[in-house]
Amino acid sequence: MKTSKYRVKGEKLKLSSFKTDETGKGSESEALERVQKRLPKIAALHERMYAEGKQSLLVVIQARDAGGKDGTVEHVLHGINPQHVVVTSFKVPSALEQAHDFLWRVHAHAPAAGMSAVFNRSHYEEVLVTRVHGQVSDEEAERRFEHIRAFEALLHDRGTRIVKLYLHISKDEQKERLQDRLDDPEKRWKFNVGDLKERALWDDYTRAYQDALAATSTRDAPWYVIPADHKWFRNDLVSQILLETLQDMDPQFPEPDFDPATISIK
Amino acid sequence: MKTSKYRVKGEKLKLSSFKTDETGKGSESEALERVQKRLPKIAALHERMYAEGKQSLLVVIQARDAGGKDGTVEHVLHGINPQHVVVTSFKVPSALEQAHDFLWRVHAHAPAAGMSAVFNRSHYEEVLVTRVHGQVSDEEAERRFEHIRAFEALLHDRGTRIVKLYLHISKDEQKERLQDRLDDPEKRWKFNVGDLKERALWDDYTRAYQDALAATSTRDAPWYVIPADHKWFRNDLVSQILLETLQDMDPQFPEPDFDPATISIK
Repeated sequence: MKTSKYRVKGEKLKLSSFKTDETGKGSESEALERVQKRLPKIAALHERMYAEGKQSLLVVIQARDAGGKDGTVEHVLHGINPQHVVVTSFKVPSALEQAHDFLWRVHAHAPAAGMSAVFNRSHYEEVLVTRVHGQVSDEEAERRFEHIRAFEALLHDRGTRIVKLYLHISKDEQKERLQDRLDDPEKRWKFNVGDLKERALWDDYTRAYQDALAATSTRDAPWYVIPADHKWFRNDLVSQILLETLQDMDPQFPEPDFDPATISIK
Repeated sequence: MKTSKYRVKGEKLKLSSFKTDETGKGSESEALERVQKRLPKIAALHERMYAEGKQSLLVVIQARDAGGKDGTVEHVLHGINPQHVVVTSFKVPSALEQAHDFLWRVHAHAPAAGMSAVFNRSHYEEVLVTRVHGQVSDEEAERRFEHIRAFEALLHDRGTRIVKLYLHISKDEQKERLQDRLDDPEKRWKFNVGDLKERALWDDYTRAYQDALAATSTRDAPWYVIPADHKWFRNDLVSQILLETLQDMDPQFPEPDFDPATISIK
């Protein structure tokens, strides 16, 4: 499939024009097979990026509650050497974090050369949850979008490729997943009563996401809207985006700074 | 197999009494099968530990150059949710790190409740490489062993299980692996000319390892000597140790702090 179709372009975005339950062509088992074929390719290119030691990759994942952030991390990053990926789950900011600008805690987790960073939730929460709850005005949000674009450009200039994924689920699908967490004793620990309050603000979140994605989807740090009602389609598409990104980065094994022929090991 | 056989006990340790090329009973393919069966069990217990949010796991991996640290991380941690494990590779300390006590930079990477930390190299370098190169005297080393025992006891008291693995390879095996890195263009980036200088100090390292392992293998933070010439045997044994450790920790899903029956999702 063409991944560019899912890329956010232009200044206006209507999430309702993106399907949540897309399945693409072909069956679930074909999609699973494609993912299984891509994972070792992703791992090999990632190893090469580590060896090269120049570029890095930042994957930002945002979604509503139960949108599939954890599952995406688990299934699509599977196979990459865990030493070379750092996944950071950003929670409610601590007092120390709140005593700084909103990018301070995020910057600390930017990927080093050769490495990948995955943000499970991110600096975007500061223009989403805060905005929905009226802690950030429209003007302040616009200002934050500027800061975010500048920050991401800084990372990009240092060799960091940025891919941002919004996992797009329907309100019905969220209901089903939350109910499942409630019903299954082994998933109940994931259920948070507070999520229901956020669910009631569904349309406010939709508007906040539309604004944020449209304002910050740039050539060098694009947003993708990932149809995510079907986990297998989501994994298929995300793995393709990651593979294409790494292929485009085209990392190379470095030249040795010694002549192998002159070395003998005693 | 009985993992306790590989545990370091007592005040004296002779590494030469541990085989490097052990293969145990059965074939390589049987060992691979055992590992494949254990990985999902390890992942499931780990998920439960995360859900519980009380205990944590610290795996310290030490070995000589080309001893298989990276490979162990890659093969045995495969399957655990990458969000819940942080692998830290400790390199030569920076100026800022050297301006602090030798446990400062390590403490920052101790695992949070529910999480695992893997140290690829660790605070033990500060009683190994530094000692071999005469930067740390015997008295200073003894003092550092005390500090290490106290530090690890602090982590243990907070709920951290500590497992320390010394990957034990022969001098011949190291030669073969270094030569392989030199010969294979896709592995050449791993070859470090400096490793040959350390190789020439083989016996000094043996003594330093013996001292450090004997002095710091405690009931709550044991060292294991892992025969590591055969990668498949190493993975078999390490996966068994990890699985047994998690089984012994016996994490439990938490009780919900709400009554699921009273909640309806709209």
